[in-house]
Amino acid sequence: METQSLKFDITAREGEARAGILTTRRGVIETPVFMPVGTAGTVKGMRFEELESENLDARIILGNTYHLWLRPGIETIKACGGLHKFIGWERAMLTDSGGFQVWSLGALRKVSEAGTEFRSHIDGALCFLSPEISMQVQAALGPEIAMAFDECAPGEATQEEARRSMELTLRWAKRSKEAFEHLQSSAARDGGEPQAGMPALPAKQALFGIVQGASHLDLRRESLERTVEIGFDGYAIGGLSVGEKKPVMFEVIEEIAPRMPPDKPRYLMGVGTPEDLIEAVARGVDMFDCVLPTRNGRTGQAFTSLGKLNIKNARYALDQRPLDETCQCSVCRRHSRAFLRHLYLSGEMLARILLTHHNLAFFLDTMRRVRQAIRSCQFAKFQREFTEHLSSESGQDCV
Amino acid sequence: METQSLKFDITAREGEARAGILTTRRGVIETPVFMPVGTAGTVKGMRFEELESENLDARIILGNTYHLWLRPGIETIKACGGLHKFIGWERAMLTDSGGFQVWSLGALRKVSEAGTEFRSHIDGALCFLSPEISMQVQAALGPEIAMAFDECAPGEATQEEARRSMELTLRWAKRSKEAFEHLQSSAARDGGEPQAGMPALPAKQALFGIVQGASHLDLRRESLERTVEIGFDGYAIGGLSVGEKKPVMFEVIEEIAPRMPPDKPRYLMGVGTPEDLIEAVARGVDMFDCVLPTRNGRTGQAFTSLGKLNIKNARYALDQRPLDETCQCSVCRRHSRAFLRHLYLSGEMLARILLTHHNLAFFLDTMRRVRQAIRSCQFAKFQREFTEHLSSESGQDCV
Repeated sequence: METQSLKFDITAREGEARAGILTTRRGVIETPVFMPVGTAGTVKGMRFEELESENLDARIILGNTYHLWLRPGIETIKACGGLHKFIGWERAMLTDSGGFQVWSLGALRKVSEAGTEFRSHIDGALCFLSPEISMQVQAALGPEIAMAFDECAPGEATQEEARRSMELTLRWAKRSKEAFEHLQSSAARDGGEPQAGMPALPAKQALFGIVQGASHLDLRRESLERTVEIGFDGYAIGGLSVGEKKPVMFEVIEEIAPRMPPDKPRYLMGVGTPEDLIEAVARGVDMFDCVLPTRNGRTGQAFTSLGKLNIKNARYALDQRPLDETCQCSVCRRHSRAFLRHLYLSGEMLARILLTHHNLAFFLDTMRRVRQAIRSCQFAKFQREFTEHLSSESGQDCV
Repeated sequence: METQSLKFDITAREGEARAGILTTRRGVIETPVFMPVGTAGTVKGMRFEELESENLDARIILGNTYHLWLRPGIETIKACGGLHKFIGWERAMLTDSGGFQVWSLGALRKVSEAGTEFRSHIDGALCFLSPEISMQVQAALGPEIAMAFDECAPGEATQEEARRSMELTLRWAKRSKEAFEHLQSSAARDGGEPQAGMPALPAKQALFGIVQGASHLDLRRESLERTVEIGFDGYAIGGLSVGEKKPVMFEVIEEIAPRMPPDKPRYLMGVGTPEDLIEAVARGVDMFDCVLPTRNGRTGQAFTSLGKLNIKNARYALDQRPLDETCQCSVCRRHSRAFLRHLYLSGEMLARILLTHHNLAFFLDTMRRVRQAIRSCQFAKFQREFTEHLSSESGQDCV
């Protein structure tokens, strides 16, 4: 399968770490990249103008197939011209396949060879998602990058459970690819010109495969090998940050990332803190998404260069410093911890808006600095200093 | 009492309607002006950058003494350098006195000659607010315009009830002024230079008196006369939009506004819809505040040039038009009714953010057009067309 919908060029390396350029029909993305999560067609609490501002400059955001499929539904999004047009975002998007979201419903789902039956978290309606349906939904949503429909195994899965789940994921990967290619060739017949001023690429969408296998390194290696045999435009490591211990997670990343095809983007799904991202970059990962900056922002937690800060803490009641004295974001340039704490304790929406903005600015700026460090062969030094700095402030909150 | 903290110049008239310039130490405000309500130091859901943007360009916002006094409390705001510095807003502010807020607590308050005893809505603590305390709190908050501490009577108050309340308000107005002057002269001794690049005015704060008297026109006239005798920097009409019928409200405004001192700003408190604002401008009012654009935005209601629109309505499910096709705000330029409806039904914060933004843009833009109309002697025509346009769309929601 030729990559006709994405172009990926590595522009610098340092050890396993790589900096590159991912070209999509909706703009150019420098990697390593962090993708803010826009579950229901909105990065919660953020105006798109903020995401586009120089401050954040998010080049790609994530949408969740599961959520958008259930609400507003594919017919609505199709009638409104696809997801980008529906939400008013012209930059690149990636959608997950719904596999993980359905998996995380736990007891509410039933997995069979055909797919997954589950109850909607909105109205309890019985739903069914399969590789074919996921591909249809993602074709209708129209992101630049779609994901194969997979099954996730829990972090503590036994060898047997993990193998069963991995084999199923592989069969679903094949079905995903077949359905995807069928849909793409119909779409190609329907035309679909690239946007004016945007990179010209012949095909509309790319499909990434997902490596599973829980914490079993042999299964992970086998999953990678057999997923690459099927052939995708990029490869993701799924099923991490799902209950396993952190050293186990990094062991898997260290084992798998460097073995992934060097000329394709490598995407670590759903991970993690800024430190985790840097650790994963050091092991060769190019793309990330995580709800931490947005979700934790909404619960009063700020990520800073000195560590996490819990704005509810009484010590900030009169603290006129910004969240992070080294941060140049619009929140840190304007607002004090004392004010943010007041907003948070008053239940004001603006608290969640401002903390989310700062956290995204911090994640995106950290990745900008990571790319710069790799390009100037200073990544190892950057990582050391970043980590030292994080733990330097004994006063920062342990939250 | 000389107006040393405000300069007010009428620049155009048409009938009773007036356009003017209100100069404060924190910038110049064109009137008639709408002031967004920033209860707890935040215009709910709005970043200050949005309020300052060309789109909205709010020159003055309101803060609530009652809310800020209870939380975060005056000691915190003082320690953080006053309200402007605490919240990060450098433009002008007006604070109410707390009188109306305490009044609206209903059964939870007890009024005496000394002041009002009430239970905090936050923790039930017993609190006491008086003219002197309100002036102390407002001096510490540091808005450009403070309000006298008043008592409000219900819309349907009898002559006797309304007179009792009006007389109390007059005695409190005198005490407010004495306390205010005492505090201002101490503040003057402490220095307090005007900001660089801002208009130079010798005194820091202005104090407005409030006309009460419920719906009794004789009481209203007497209240105005005796409030003017005490002497304030501007005059407000209070106690409207508190349960009385709309024709009654306009009767009071029509009776009182044109009799208010012509060289001082006239402020109609807590009113109303865009049509109400225009009606009141036609009767000589210069300043307005109201929670409608922000509160209704949060509950899914948009104000448009064709009338109110309830975004929850199923007819908008596939509607790709903006909220208002004639609106140039950043929300209408980017987002469809279908998307806003999806956000609202999904409980997404962004729905409230975007509807609030649009509503404020609509109110502020309407006032901009009002000023322009008065300056070009087209106000009567503008009002007629605005009203005709409002009722032209039979399809708009009646909400």
